[in-house]
Parts: sequence; structure tokens; C-alpha cells
Amino acid sequence: MSDIRVLTGPEVAEHASRDSCWIIVHGKVYDVTDFLDEHPGGSKIILKYAGKDATEAYEPIHPPDAITTNLPPEKHLGAIDASTVAKVIKEVTEEEKRRLALLDARPPLDSVINLHDFENVAKMVLPEKAWAYYSSASDDEITIRENRMAYQRIWWRPRILRDVSSVDWSTTILGQKSTLPVYISATALGKLGHPDGELCLTRAAANHGVIQMIATLASCSFDDIIDAAAPGQTFFLQLYVNRDREITRKYVQHAEKRGVKGLFITVDAPQLGRREKDMRMKAVDDNAGAEVQKGQDVKKDQGVARAISSFIDPSLSWKDIPWFRSITKMPIILKGIGSAEDAVLAYEAGVQGIVLSNHGGRQLDTARSGIEVLVEVVTALRQRGYFPDPKFEIYVDGGVRRASDVLKAIALGAKAVGVGRPFLYAFCAYGQEGVEKAIQIFRDEFEMNMRLLGARTIDEIVPEMVDASSLTSHFVMTPQDNLFNNTYQPLALAKFRDAKL
Amino acid sequence: MSDIRVLTGPEVAEHASRDSCWIIVHGKVYDVTDFLDEHPGGSKIILKYAGKDATEAYEPIHPPDAITTNLPPEKHLGAIDASTVAKVIKEVTEEEKRRLALLDARPPLDSVINLHDFENVAKMVLPEKAWAYYSSASDDEITIRENRMAYQRIWWRPRILRDVSSVDWSTTILGQKSTLPVYISATALGKLGHPDGELCLTRAAANHGVIQMIATLASCSFDDIIDAAAPGQTFFLQLYVNRDREITRKYVQHAEKRGVKGLFITVDAPQLGRREKDMRMKAVDDNAGAEVQKGQDVKKDQGVARAISSFIDPSLSWKDIPWFRSITKMPIILKGIGSAEDAVLAYEAGVQGIVLSNHGGRQLDTARSGIEVLVEVVTALRQRGYFPDPKFEIYVDGGVRRASDVLKAIALGAKAVGVGRPFLYAFCAYGQEGVEKAIQIFRDEFEMNMRLLGARTIDEIVPEMVDASSLTSHFVMTPQDNLFNNTYQPLALAKFRDAKL
Amino acid sequence: MSDIRVLTGPEVAEHASRDSCWIIVHGKVYDVTDFLDEHPGGSKIILKYAGKDATEAYEPIHPPDAITTNLPPEKHLGAIDASTVAKVIKEVTEEEKRRLALLDARPPLDSVINLHDFENVAKMVLPEKAWAYYSSASDDEITIRENRMAYQRIWWRPRILRDVSSVDWSTTILGQKSTLPVYISATALGKLGHPDGELCLTRAAANHGVIQMIATLASCSFDDIIDAAAPGQTFFLQLYVNRDREITRKYVQHAEKRGVKGLFITVDAPQLGRREKDMRMKAVDDNAGAEVQKGQDVKKDQGVARAISSFIDPSLSWKDIPWFRSITKMPIILKGIGSAEDAVLAYEAGVQGIVLSNHGGRQLDTARSGIEVLVEVVTALRQRGYFPDPKFEIYVDGGVRRASDVLKAIALGAKAVGVGRPFLYAFCAYGQEGVEKAIQIFRDEFEMNMRLLGARTIDEIVPEMVDASSLTSHFVMTPQDNLFNNTYQPLALAKFRDAKL
Amino acid sequence: MSDIRVLTGPEVAEHASRDSCWIIVHGKVYDVTDFLDEHPGGSKIILKYAGKDATEAYEPIHPPDAITTNLPPEKHLGAIDASTVAKVIKEVTEEEKRRLALLDARPPLDSVINLHDFENVAKMVLPEKAWAYYSSASDDEITIRENRMAYQRIWWRPRILRDVSSVDWSTTILGQKSTLPVYISATALGKLGHPDGELCLTRAAANHGVIQMIATLASCSFDDIIDAAAPGQTFFLQLYVNRDREITRKYVQHAEKRGVKGLFITVDAPQLGRREKDMRMKAVDDNAGAEVQKGQDVKKDQGVARAISSFIDPSLSWKDIPWFRSITKMPIILKGIGSAEDAVLAYEAGVQGIVLSNHGGRQLDTARSGIEVLVEVVTALRQRGYFPDPKFEIYVDGGVRRASDVLKAIALGAKAVGVGRPFLYAFCAYGQEGVEKAIQIFRDEFEMNMRLLGARTIDEIVPEMVDASSLTSHFVMTPQDNLFNNTYQPLALAKFRDAKL
Repeated sequence: MSDIRVLTGPEVAEHASRDSCWIIVHGKVYDVTDFLDEHPGGSKIILKYAGKDATEAYEPIHPPDAITTNLPPEKHLGAIDASTVAKVIKEVTEEEKRRLALLDARPPLDSVINLHDFENVAKMVLPEKAWAYYSSASDDEITIRENRMAYQRIWWRPRILRDVSSVDWSTTILGQKSTLPVYISATALGKLGHPDGELCLTRAAANHGVIQMIATLASCSFDDIIDAAAPGQTFFLQLYVNRDREITRKYVQHAEKRGVKGLFITVDAPQLGRREKDMRMKAVDDNAGAEVQKGQDVKKDQGVARAISSFIDPSLSWKDIPWFRSITKMPIILKGIGSAEDAVLAYEAGVQGIVLSNHGGRQLDTARSGIEVLVEVVTALRQRGYFPDPKFEIYVDGGVRRASDVLKAIALGAKAVGVGRPFLYAFCAYGQEGVEKAIQIFRDEFEMNMRLLGARTIDEIVPEMVDASSLTSHFVMTPQDNLFNNTYQPLALAKFRDAKL
Repeated sequence: MSDIRVLTGPEVAEHASRDSCWIIVHGKVYDVTDFLDEHPGGSKIILKYAGKDATEAYEPIHPPDAITTNLPPEKHLGAIDASTVAKVIKEVTEEEKRRLALLDARPPLDSVINLHDFENVAKMVLPEKAWAYYSSASDDEITIRENRMAYQRIWWRPRILRDVSSVDWSTTILGQKSTLPVYISATALGKLGHPDGELCLTRAAANHGVIQMIATLASCSFDDIIDAAAPGQTFFLQLYVNRDREITRKYVQHAEKRGVKGLFITVDAPQLGRREKDMRMKAVDDNAGAEVQKGQDVKKDQGVARAISSFIDPSLSWKDIPWFRSITKMPIILKGIGSAEDAVLAYEAGVQGIVLSNHGGRQLDTARSGIEVLVEVVTALRQRGYFPDPKFEIYVDGGVRRASDVLKAIALGAKAVGVGRPFLYAFCAYGQEGVEKAIQIFRDEFEMNMRLLGARTIDEIVPEMVDASSLTSHFVMTPQDNLFNNTYQPLALAKFRDAKL
Repeated sequence: MSDIRVLTGPEVAEHASRDSCWIIVHGKVYDVTDFLDEHPGGSKIILKYAGKDATEAYEPIHPPDAITTNLPPEKHLGAIDASTVAKVIKEVTEEEKRRLALLDARPPLDSVINLHDFENVAKMVLPEKAWAYYSSASDDEITIRENRMAYQRIWWRPRILRDVSSVDWSTTILGQKSTLPVYISATALGKLGHPDGELCLTRAAANHGVIQMIATLASCSFDDIIDAAAPGQTFFLQLYVNRDREITRKYVQHAEKRGVKGLFITVDAPQLGRREKDMRMKAVDDNAGAEVQKGQDVKKDQGVARAISSFIDPSLSWKDIPWFRSITKMPIILKGIGSAEDAVLAYEAGVQGIVLSNHGGRQLDTARSGIEVLVEVVTALRQRGYFPDPKFEIYVDGGVRRASDVLKAIALGAKAVGVGRPFLYAFCAYGQEGVEKAIQIFRDEFEMNMRLLGARTIDEIVPEMVDASSLTSHFVMTPQDNLFNNTYQPLALAKFRDAKL
Repeated sequence: MSDIRVLTGPEVAEHASRDSCWIIVHGKVYDVTDFLDEHPGGSKIILKYAGKDATEAYEPIHPPDAITTNLPPEKHLGAIDASTVAKVIKEVTEEEKRRLALLDARPPLDSVINLHDFENVAKMVLPEKAWAYYSSASDDEITIRENRMAYQRIWWRPRILRDVSSVDWSTTILGQKSTLPVYISATALGKLGHPDGELCLTRAAANHGVIQMIATLASCSFDDIIDAAAPGQTFFLQLYVNRDREITRKYVQHAEKRGVKGLFITVDAPQLGRREKDMRMKAVDDNAGAEVQKGQDVKKDQGVARAISSFIDPSLSWKDIPWFRSITKMPIILKGIGSAEDAVLAYEAGVQGIVLSNHGGRQLDTARSGIEVLVEVVTALRQRGYFPDPKFEIYVDGGVRRASDVLKAIALGAKAVGVGRPFLYAFCAYGQEGVEKAIQIFRDEFEMNMRLLGARTIDEIVPEMVDASSLTSHFVMTPQDNLFNNTYQPLALAKFRDAKL
């Protein structure tokens, strides 16, 4: 309709102060002066880009339309003439050089043989901030590790002498076909780790018949992801509910219109957890060379996670469920249930499923693992005649690294298992191919495990196949008698003749 | 009334032997010759200052009036003419230089994001002796660590979909308002770690509406602390009962008169524990260059703790409770209960509360943690109809480092939780501001945890929110098969191409 | 019958491509062109030897008759004139030099005093690939270690004051005399570790009256082993069932004819497990200097294990048992039972015994140990009146390193225990003498343990002698509070005067 | 009676071969040619001293009269003329120099504040062989460590507000007064560690009213020890029963005549355990520079322990008890009971007490600790009305390092506790004074613990004071997921500004 004003680099550069602060994002110029104090990440980080192009910093940690949504139209000043913007010659730090060398030297993809490998490569090749954001969990990070440990408290009781020449581990999730009893769970800010962000997941999922759950906080916009889909590709949507319900309504209905098959409402994050690795990263940044100062801004140490999540509504409650039912026909799943009581309430509220999850250990620390909660949930539902019920599916996520883990969850009553970080790390390390390799590893492990368990189909994975009697035991080692340990001399093996060898 | 005699440095210096030993403390001269053998810390340490100014050594480890109380008036020789005392040029050791450099380099306060950080900074910047005294615990230091570990045997069962837009973690303790369900528990000898000593706590507590418990063995005198209080600031008093009950009576009644709101009588310390870190410190000092000698003074290896505590009455018993009731109207709380039996006796003795505590692991080693004892105490009291009872409050202390720990104690029946060392370390590391930051961290953690638990007020923190079934399990790892472990080769991750990276 | 054609080195060397690929094995020339794509280990490894002598690579990992069996007679081109084949001068790598130096420096055999010592020597002196193949287990290698750990959850209740001047630990296994309640369990590819391969076991077993179980995948041919036997020496046969049952029938009947006394059918390996150490070895090999490539051959990362096992029939089932019964009179034992249910089925199927085993941790990871399964199996059989039954023997294998372990299994109901890797490592390290020393160590340990238990014969090893109440506890340590651990300062011992000492 | 022949060095030196082997011991010359093959420690070690003075090697590991008893009188050749024996100039090895420097630098005795300190000093200053012999235990040394660990599975339930101004931890043992509820348990070969050997114990015990149990295998002769006693000093006797009962009868009756008050018959050692540290020591010695040889002497790797113990009778049984009763009036105690069944048999056999012991972990490995066995023993005896019974006392030994451990044993039903290695290490490190210091440490710890427990006398140490519910739990950590652990990045504390600090 209107002519678009075109500005030049020098014009923008004049507005580089707290009193008048313009920035360039994606080729557009914005006046953010009045917004400085409202910015969830603090004003300081914006002021770093005052009068300059902020796109590179903006991109991975904001939903693409964040700036257009939050700034009133009159602050949209126009387009920038790219040729007039001084190129910033970024100095490559030693740290960054080392990272790039590591990226170059990463193991060939076919030497990657398990999901841990992806994580290790990602840890080495990711920018520090991205690794901190992805890997961090809350408080003492006990729950994130417990998520993994819990699977080791479940032991197999395999069956033998069954004809397992062909085994089939495909299933349906919310009635949708899936080649694996696994879906790609939502993780945020994919572009921090790979320029293609979540599209790596979308393309790999298409090739292998796996369902992707799209995150509200994805770096790629919802439509970009859907546009990249193969025909008939299945998606679920993870939803953080906005304080402004109208925004949520539009978002959900748009998703339904574009064919999303399930709405996973996150219910374990009325406020994002304190994630210290992420917070440290922020602190390091801001405090470089700083003195101990008095009365500093509290927001400083909140990390990326809190900065991007201020829109989430802490007042969300059971009362809101009917409203969701009223705005969409998609199956509704509550993601983040942590007790039998809430599983029963969810069933009685008429939703189509629940995810037993502690948000990858990123929210309440020392919350139990999904797999442990599963046992009490299935017991409680069964007692009330609510389980099994084909119209109410139970999922689990957190800590899964092996097909064997997935099968344990299925034996205990889960319909499928969500896998988040491993796929994220796979694309951070190797892009789309990494994700495909991860799926292939799962396939290979499923084949082997089902054969070794004597199960030909997912239905033959039954509770009797596991011994989960140690699952609820939370042992902590009694503090050691260090003096005794220091004086005890461990046994040694027979010595080789030349100690120098 | 009388003229005060003024002495000179050289005059004092003439009395520098066991036969005639004068010392200067706080500008006064004392003849301590006859007291040498009675000194709880041994005569040797006094003789080091014979004929000299002993103030610096005296100050942090004696109640301010110790010398005036213990020496008869005729041994108070008069004032010193400061100008006549030779200044001692203290050589700064390499150790001390390193410490001061560390102090200078300590992390900026706003990079401190949890209570552990304070402890780590304190460990690095405190004089060795102070760290040894504060951090030490008894025997093998198993209980001090168990205090922390016990909280990790309690796991959350959080609730979701409750409107947690506003959450409130304030409470009352003995009827007094507290912005946190936490009080500052008594710790001794604060000036060992910071020149302002316990006043750092007082000032921070005032700013944040937190209650401070004043220690009998504080470095700052009781009145100095009360004088520094803000109007209406609430204090409790921790009491070591003196062998001379008259001293105790005066002390308690004085406290009540000055507005103290609760009397916490320590009942777990008829004798102070053997604290080896503290004892080692003493030994190092005395034995520098010493030969192995026969028949040495036993007292030598007793450390600071025992030296300062000889006045405590080991005969204190249940029979004394009515006497306490007779001398004060303050609520009486027994601090240091470790079994259900004694909790029942306490209730029946008519006191107003108990602290389930093992004295921060400093007394009986392998005593159970307060949080573990809490479960049996609540069960026993409930069986007798003594719980809940608004007139009888239960507190817990020991091992708390997260708001999450506090909330677990509350879920299991505690009214509030005492936190000692973390606040102590906070001021050792950063003075009053450190304590304020510690309180702020608690606030931030309480907010997050209550939201994530689905609890809007302290009352909504209920027993069903925790799984404490592993709490009484005292697991000790079976000794390892070291030969097996030495031959087992752990799995490795995929290798990067250049091993040098 | 026919003249044998004799070929020369240069003639063979002309066929060194994918289009025409001849190789020399054991002095014979074969045309493997058409077989390249069928080779379970991939074509690449064969092409490495195209036109050359492949014997050295072929030998340790193929049954001796593999090539003659798999290639049709017309591809058997004739004999080679050895004098015409160019000798390959193998470059000795630094790695190999180091290995040979270690071999030379290995501990004198009489300083070897336990079975762990053999494993350690083997680890140091074996070629990397051999160590990887032997030591590897599946997935996270949890079960292989659990196999050992489980024995440490069983504690002795010894008896005293019994006349133990003479003790006897001999027994019978399937009616055959054995000087130990231990048999040598089947392990594959012995020539990878020692040029004499499994013959080392055969000769040592003969000298000590121990029974050897011959592996289907032994490097030495079945007949070579039987030919090396002493008169009356007892053997069992481990059987992988071939997809082509006729091959299996012939193999079994041949074994029976040659005097084998028991048929142990492996039932826990319809597909071989993913063994990452073995897979890594393969990957390292193939990827030396390789770029990250797209769409690579999946088979590449399968390791030795899978390459050699493609003939195994995954359709084997309970229905096949009568067929086995029909082709042999040997006792039939099912090797690889992991649950009480299958033990009951086995008994009811009329077999003569079962081995409670998880295949040395090489198949289903987090499967329970044989010793743990033993308790539930004995209980279930006893409940049905199936135990004890002299016609149905129960064996256990996995993780045994001490006579004490064997006796625990016997106390819990096992007739004997299979020991595989320790004997394998013994001959890898010291050849036949190593195996003899291993047996001698067992004897010495049996004597000591039986005396200390107060048991004069194997029959006196009774269930009351063990406390196995912790056996089913699968304790996993709650993740540690690393921040707490980092700030806690462990107690120190008294310091020596000169720290430099 | 007869003239004693006096021989010269050169005369003896002529008999320095296997065909004629003379040695000098304690100034006497013996012809040991015929005895070479009977020597329990092997002939090799004797031949090292053929024609020379063997006293130094003989002394610490033989009962003083071993040679005179074992050699027939005609092999006693006469006295040696000391002046004619060439002095051997011993080369001091680097190892020995280092040891002597450590001995010189050992911590001053008053910096020793717990029993662990003695052990650490002993470990550093003892000759390697002595340390190996003393510290070694059997097989994987699991039981020796479990002995200590078990005490950490017992937790205190202390009582408060009891008048503990005076506490008394003295008791009686077999009716004899003891200032501690602890006796010095028998340990062998004290001269390996200190020239005065067990006399260090005797003299210290005299000064502190503690009872010493004399070991059959003491380096000092029984009479030397008794001769060194103070008037009225109490001793017990530990007895290894000789294959020749007459020797035993004389030994026991002699002990009774000399005033010994209790006979502790060792019943857990029909054969000495395989102690690998001790065995390694032997192997190192013999194999210096040796080649791997065939058919070597099996006895070589048996270590000191087995060499000195061949006289012990493995046929000892319950049938022998009446005979013991017939030869002595001393109370008889069976040392080494490990199950309730045998405790009941012992009671019914009419002995006066039992020691629940596993021989310091030196015999049957993975035998349970004495303290764990105590619980089942007391329960079983109580069920039969055998407990409490003032005429039947129960002792425990193994793993005690703190007075707190002793009190736990007493709470659970023990009359007293045996302490062996800690006193042994005390005198190895500091001679008699070390033992006195160890006793003093015990006293100090008893005083503190009894006060903190609220127990004024040993009788007030009651079962309710301990929570032993975890005592029988033998947890073993599930093998770790190493890949996960390797990728997990632990949380870090706030960083100091200059990482170099």
C-alpha cells in the first residue's frame, strides 16, 4: 500500500544511544528507544547494537516475527540500503578458531554409532552460548541426569526361542503412522546450533516417516517448517500459552488449518527454571572485566531461557482446558505431568493424552523422571478403569539414548517416547544427515532389541519383560570415609617387567 | 570514679614471662600470670603475647567481655599509652599474599548465582584458620555431608495447571513475620572471617525482613548487634548454658529486655565435638619444626572450638527446663533434637518448639540429618495427638543450599528452616552485600520452585508433594573389585580426526 | 580324482579388480568375483587382497572350511605355486612394535596369581582388533559389568569347626566327570589372539580333567580340536543354528559321532548384538583419512561379530526342539535363558539342561546376570516340582573370576559354571600354560574357599551359606551435587614434615 | 650337661649348598640340609643364607623356638664364635633410603589425632614386605573394606538433656577390668614392623589398664611378653591349634599357669587365606629378572602368611571342644564365628564367649562383617533364651577406627570390641608411645561420644540408640553409562577473575 522508506547506514548510525536507539533487523530499520526497558533480555544487549545491524544476534533467539509483533507500526522506520551499511569485520577469537578447527575435524558421520556421539560432537563444535543454552538444566542438574539413570534401574527379562526372523517396531501416535515408537520432541532456538535450524529435523523426518513436534520457540517460523514439509508429513505442535490468549488462539487455529495433528500444551513451565549454565554464560558476558558493584540489575543473570520466555502465562490452569477444546479439534495433550494425581485429572478433563515429562530436567530439579512417574500413573489409571484406553495415550520423554530405553517405556505402558536433545545435537553436529543417521541408529537398535527380547511387534513388548522393582529407589551414597580410603591401598595387577612401557 | 592508671609499652614489656605475664587487650593492660594455667586455649598461646598487645589475636575468638569477666578487678592494671607501644611490623607470608590476591580477584557479586558460590569464594579467601574453624565437623565428617545428601533422597511430586501468577513464600516463625520460611541460624566467631562479623547479618536481615538468631559465641557482643538493628527487627537468641547459672540468667533476661523474641537453647553440645580440621590447624601451628616429644600437653590438639567452649555445662538436663521457664517469658526452643523420643519429651516439657539438628555435623558424627529425623518426629507426635499444634513449632537445620530443600522440609512438617554456614560464607566473601545477595537468591528460587510445584502459599506445600521413601536408606557402596575395574576398558566416543585438538 | 591345476603368483595378480577378483587362501586359488557383494564383511575387505594371498586375514575369523563351503566348485581354481608369489614385506607399525615389546615384557607366569592378571596381560599384548572383538559387549556394556558386580551382592555365611582336612570340589556335568565345577565355555575366533587358537584350551583341559565346550565359530576346525584330544577327554559342543538346517544336522551328527557329550544350543542370539568396541575398530579401519560422506554403506560399522554371524537363523523357536531331539542322542542344553518363564518351558520341552546366561553381556544390554536369574529360576522350578531333578541341570555363566563366585552359584542351585573369557585371555597371554595356570589358580581357590566355608564336598555347599538378599537390588547412584562436592574439602591425614617426600 | 661345641665362620661357610647346608641363628649353628624340602617357606629362601648368619631374616617371622623345635637335637651343631663371622655390609637400596627419610620426617606424635593417621604413617615408613603382610587381606579385599563400611550403615539416635558431667566407659571383659570396652586383638609378626615387636603393646597396655590378647604367631615369645607385664596385668591368649595336640596342650597349660585369663581359639583359619599383596611381595622377590619358566614350584607365590602357618590343624572341629575344656580352666572363646547357626552351637557347646570376626578380612572374602553378623546372632540367641547371659559374652572385631564404632557394637549387643591393626600400626609408627596415644585417642573419643549420646555408662548404650536398618543392605552400584557421563558437563562454580590463581 504505502511507499517503503529506505534508510542508509550513516542515518541509522546517528541513533546509537539510549536516547535514540535504532537497529537494523532483517533489512528493516526499527526505533527501539521506548522498548529498551521492556526488553526481556535487558536493554544492555540491545544497546550493543544501537545504530547497527543486529540481525545476527537477533535471529537465533527470537521468533522471526518478535520484533514486528512487539513494536508498534510507527516504530517500523523502513528498509535499509544494505550497500550503505559498513561491514563489521568480526575479529575471530582464539576460542572461535579452536571451535572451527574442531568442526572441521569432527568424526566422519559413519563413525557415529550411537546418540551419545552426536552430543559429544555438538559439545565440541557448538558456540559456547548455544551449548550452554541447550545442555543446561535447572538448579543442581540432578533431574536431567536422573532422567538417564532411571532407565538403568529397569532390567530386561528377555524371552527366547520365538521366531524373530521379521520384527516390526512401527506404531501409531494419536492415530498417525510412525515408523518408530519415537517422535521428535520440541526443542527451542535451533539456529543457535545450525543455520538451517529446525528445518534439519523436518527434512529428515520426512525421509524416514517420523513425526516432528514443532516448538513455539523454534528459530524457524512455524510456516517455514510447514512449507518445507513433504506431502502428508505429520506434525504436532508444542504450545507455550501466551498471557494474551488471542495470540494463542490464532496460533493454534493457524496450526490446525495447516494440518497439524496434535496440540501438546506445555504445563510444567509457568516460569522457566533457573538454569545455571545458561545464567553463567550471561554473567561471563556482561561481567568481563567488571568490578564488584552494588545494586546491580537483577535481570542480568537470567540467561537466554528467561529472556525469551516472559510471554508465558503463569496463570494457566485446569479451567482453561474447555477453552482450548472450544478453539480446536486437534487432539489435546498435556505435556509435563509429574504425578498420578494430575494424570487422573487430565483423563477426567477429557484430553487425549499426556506426556510424563520434567522438561528435560530444565524446570523443577529433583522432580522424578518420566519413566518413574509412568509406573504410578499407569497404576492409578488402571485402578480407576482409565487404562488401557485407546483414546488416551501416555508418552514419556527425557533421558532416552537407546532404543532399549524406548522399549522399556513401552513395556511399562507408554504409547511412544519423545526424543529432543539427541536429535537437536544430531543436526548441530551434522545437519539433516545427522538426524537421518540418528533415526537409522534407532532403527538398527530397535531391530536388534526386539529380536533379543523375543518380541515381533510393539504389542509383544509386555510388562513382564521388565524388572522395574528398583525404579523408585533413590539411593544416595553415604559420604565416604576419606581417611580410610586414603590409607587403603588398592590391589595391583601383576607388573610388566619394564615399568616404562 | 577512680583514676585510671596509664601504663607504657616498655613497662608492660618487662612482664613477658611465665612468672609475670602482662598483656594489652583493647587498650587496657591485664596481669594474666595467675590465669595462664586456667586458659582454656592453653598457656602457650598467651605467652606468645606476654608483654605485648594481644588484641588482634584475642578479638575474633573471645566474647568481648571475656577477659574482664574472668580476671578479678585487681588484675586490671590500667590503660595503655598507645603511642608508647612498639608497632609490630607483621611480615606478610606468601600464603597470605596469595590469599589477598584471591580476595582481590574474587568473582563479581552478580556472577554469584547460588549459595555454593559463596562457600567456594569463602574457602579461597578466608585465612586458613577461619576456614578450618567454620568448615570443620566432627570425626570423619560424615554427618555434615549427609546433611546435604539427605535432601537428594527426597523427590518432588509437582502439581500442574494451578494459577501461579502470584506466589507467596512468607510465613511466621514463633508468631513473628518472616519474608522467608528461613531464619539465619547462629554461627560463632564471625570476625575470624570478616571485620564486621555478625553485624553483616544484622544489617542484611533488616533490609530483607529476615530473622537473625544471635549466637552466644558471636564475635560481636550481643548489645552491639541489637544496637545495630533496624526498628522492629526480630531476633532470636541461641544459648549455651553456663556452668554458672547466674551468668545465664542475666544473659537471658537481658536479651528478653532488649526485645529478643525466642530463646533457642542448644542441647546437643554438652561437650564440643572433635573437629579434626580445626584440630589440625592447631597442631600445625604449635608443631612447626617440633620434634616428636614425649608426654606433651593433651590440650594442644583441641582446636579453636574446644578452647572457647569450656564454660558450657554438661550437666544440663530436663530438670532445668522449669527454671528457664521461670526466668523468661520468651518462647523456649530446644535446639539439637535427634530422635522422636526426645521430641515427645520436649513437647511434654511444655517448650514452644524444637530444632531438629545435629549442629551442622559438628557434634556426633553419623548422627542422622535433621530432615530424616523430621519424618519420625512428625509421625511420633501425630500418633500422640501433638501434631499439628500451632503452639509447638518444628524447625530443621543443616545442609540446606536451595529453596527447594527448604520446601521439602516444609512439606514434611517443618515450620521453617535454619540456615547458618551459607550466610556466614556470604559475608566472609562479600560482607553485608553477600548476605543480601544470598537472600535474593533464596527469593528467586522460592518463586520458581513454588510456581513449578503448583503451590501459591506455604500452606499449599503438602506432604503428598514429596516422595521421601528413600530417605532412611543409608546406602554404602560395597567395596569395589579394583582388579576388575582396572582391566575393564570403558567405552569411548567417536574420535575427532586430530587427536591433538 | 582330477588333476589339480597349479597357478602362479603373477597369474593371480592379474585378477585384482572388482571385475575379476581372485584370492589365495591356504595355498588354493579362488575366484570370488561373484561373491563380493554377498560377503558378510563387505566387499571392501576382500578387494584389499584381490590378486594376493589373503590367508593371514582370512584365517582367524573364518571357520576353516568357510570358503570351500560357500564358493561353488567351479570357483575353486586350483593350487598356487608358493615360490611364485611375491613375499609381502609387512611394515611394522609403531603400535605393533610397542605391542611386541609388551609381549616380551609380560609378567612371568608365576607372578600371575588371579584371573584378572590374564585379562590385563591380554589387554596389553593383543592386537587392537582382537582385544576389541573379545572384550566388547553390547550397547553401553552395562550387562557385562553387572555380570561381575552381581557376585558382590552375594555374601557368605561360612560355617566353622568342621573337619576340613580334606576337601573335594570335583563334580559331574551331564554325567561326565570334571575335576572342577567349572567348564570352559565357548568363545570364538581364538586365533585372533594366539596362533594355536582353541587348541591351547584342548591341551590344557586334557591335562587337568576339565571339560571344553567347542564353539561353532572357533578358529580351529572342530576336527582339529577333537584330533588333538587326549584319550577319553570330554567335550561339549556350542551350536549356532544355521538357516540351512541340513548343515546343522550334519554338524551335530558328526560331533556326536566323534564323541561329544552334550549339545549346547545358543538361544540368545537370533541376531548378534551391537558391540561398539568391535564396531569402532571397523570404523577406524575404514575411515582412515576419509571425509564425511553421504549415503555410505550401512554395513561398514558392523564390526567383526556381525560379519561372521549372518548364517545364524533368527527363526529358531521352541518348535525346533523335537527336531533336534530327533537327530541326536546327546543331551540337549539351551544356552542363554534369561527368565523363569523360559526355564519352565525348557524343562517342559524335555531338554537336559539350561545355561542361565546373557552371552557375556554381548547381546541384550541391561539383561540381568545369570546368577540373578538363577534365583528366580530355581524358585519357579521348585514351585512346580521340577527342582531338584538329577535329569535337568542348571548352569550359569558370565562374570566369574574367582572360585568363590562359582561356589556362590552352586549354593544357589547351579550344577556348574561356565567360564569363557578368562580362559581365552589366559591363552592369549601365555598359550596353553596360561590355561593350565588358570586352572591351577581355580584349584587353589577352591581348596581355600571350601575349607573356609566348612564344606568338604560340593554337596555341602548349601543355600544357607549365602545371603543373596541384595541380589535383585539394582542400585543406581543419584546424580551427585557437583557444586557441593567441589566446595567440600576432604579431611587430610597428619602431614609428614617434608612435603617433598 | 654336655660341652657345647664352638664353631667358626669359615667352618660354617663351607656348608653352603643344597648338599650340605648350615646356617647360624641367634648364635647357634644348625644343619638344615635334610629340612630344606620341608621348610614351609620353601628351600630357596634358606639357601640364600646357606653357610651364613640367617638371624635377621629368621627373627621376625618365626616363633623364637621354631628352629629348636623342628630340628632334631643332632642337627644342633653348637655355638658360633661371633668374632669369626665375616660382617656382611648391607647395601642400602634407594627404596630403603627413602623409607628411612620418611621415618625421620614422620609427623610429630601429637599431630596424630585419629587412628587412620597411624595407619598412614605405618604405610609410609614400614618396609614393603611388612606393610604387605600386615595390610593384606584375601582375594579382592572386599571384606576388609566392608568391615569398615558396615559401621557407616549404622546411624545414631542420640538422646539429649541428660546430665553427662561425668561419663564412664570402663567395663569388664570375661570378668576382668578394662578401662575401655576394647581389647588389643592378636596380630602376628610384630617385629617385622618394630624391633620391640609386641612388647610395645604390653607396656602400653600396662600403663592404661587395657587387656592384650597374645598371638600364637607373635614375634616375641609368649614368656618374653608375660615377663614384661606389670603386676596384675591382664592377658588373653589367641590360639592356633597345632596338628600335634600335645604341643597345643603344653602351650595352653603354660599360658594358664602364667596367669592368662582367657583362651581365644581361632576357628576361621583351617587354612590361611590367599592374600595377594603378600603373595605379590613374594613373587617380586623371587622373580627379579626371571624368565617365564615352565613347571615352577607352586609354593613360590604363597607369601609370608602361608609359609608360617602350615602347622595349623584343618581338622579342628566341634568334637575338640570338650578336650579343650579338659585341659584348662580358662574361659574358652571361639574367635571367628560368622553365622547365627554357629553362635548357637557355640553357646550350646558351653564355651564362655564368641568373637564375631572374619579375621580382619584375611580369610574368606565377601564374608560379612562382624558387626552385621552381630545382629543376626543376638536375634537368634535371644529367640532361644540364650541372650542376654552374663556367662556368655559376644565380641566383635574388624574395621573399628573410632570409639563411635565400638559404641555401635555395644548398642547392638557386644560386650567389647577387638582392635588389632590400628594398635599394630601405632607401634610400627611410634613404638610404645604410639600405642599409648592410640588409647588416649580412644579415651577422648569415648568421652565425647558418650556425652553426645546422652549415655553415662556403658549400660546406657542401648539398642534404641542406633538405626541399623540399612546394615544388611549390600548395594553395588549399577555399572555406569560411561558415554553419558563423558558427555555430561558438570556445573561449575563462579569463576575467579584470574584463572591463573
